[in-house]
Amino acid sequence: MKALGRQILVEYYDCDEDVINDVSQIESILLDATRKSKASIISHNFHKFSPHGVSGTVVIAESHIAIHTWPEYGYAAVDIFTCGETIDPWIIQDHIREYFHSGNVSSMEMKRGLFRVAEGEELLFKPKDAPSFASNS
Amino acid sequence: MKALGRQILVEYYDCDEDVINDVSQIESILLDATRKSKASIISHNFHKFSPHGVSGTVVIAESHIAIHTWPEYGYAAVDIFTCGETIDPWIIQDHIREYFHSGNVSSMEMKRGLFRVAEGEELLFKPKDAPSFASNS
Repeated sequence: MKALGRQILVEYYDCDEDVINDVSQIESILLDATRKSKASIISHNFHKFSPHGVSGTVVIAESHIAIHTWPEYGYAAVDIFTCGETIDPWIIQDHIREYFHSGNVSSMEMKRGLFRVAEGEELLFKPKDAPSFASNS
Repeated sequence: MKALGRQILVEYYDCDEDVINDVSQIESILLDATRKSKASIISHNFHKFSPHGVSGTVVIAESHIAIHTWPEYGYAAVDIFTCGETIDPWIIQDHIREYFHSGNVSSMEMKRGLFRVAEGEELLFKPKDAPSFASNS
């Protein structure tokens, strides 16, 4: 069995509450983390909730990163979904941990899109094709 | 232990390849599914890749929905992340299955943001607060 993608579900506990309530800082941290991993950013959206909390997504050519924060609990949920072999999602996980000053991180890696392939055969991944950048939003 | 959110990771196999390669249809199907669940849509972005495949995210007040499709494999990966008790993510899962004509669906539900709370105490969820709609993108 081979997988088209892998996804890391990260629970960041004991974060700096000011950082994870600041939509601009979160946007910078996630975009920097994404660039550090060499993923190709296609679009991003971040939203601040009242009175607290931020949600955001970064669509990358290799899939996506999503975040939801609960500053009142010092907690942020982050998903890092990548396909292909060129991106190391753990670079993104580590960068976010450092800048959120998270004292307690729990991560789970999942395989997505499992297919049975013949010996020596590979699955083809979307990132081999440049995105056309046709978009609806 | 109580959870701030829950997330359904859905593997849709044996989908209609034309549907899951059509960015406009995917956008309509996901937005209709989201509205059917009564979730509040804040923003959405969908992108078509060349030569095939679509990626997209829908940020909702209650968290997010994300999709990546591989029409060449008849496969779509969908995440449905919700917080609070008002939204039933399975309504979204079922709607997408129907319109993708998926012959084989595998879903896994995860709890996100686990906290120990005293007996009778509840965690507060962001959706109780209206989103302020301040956004960076």
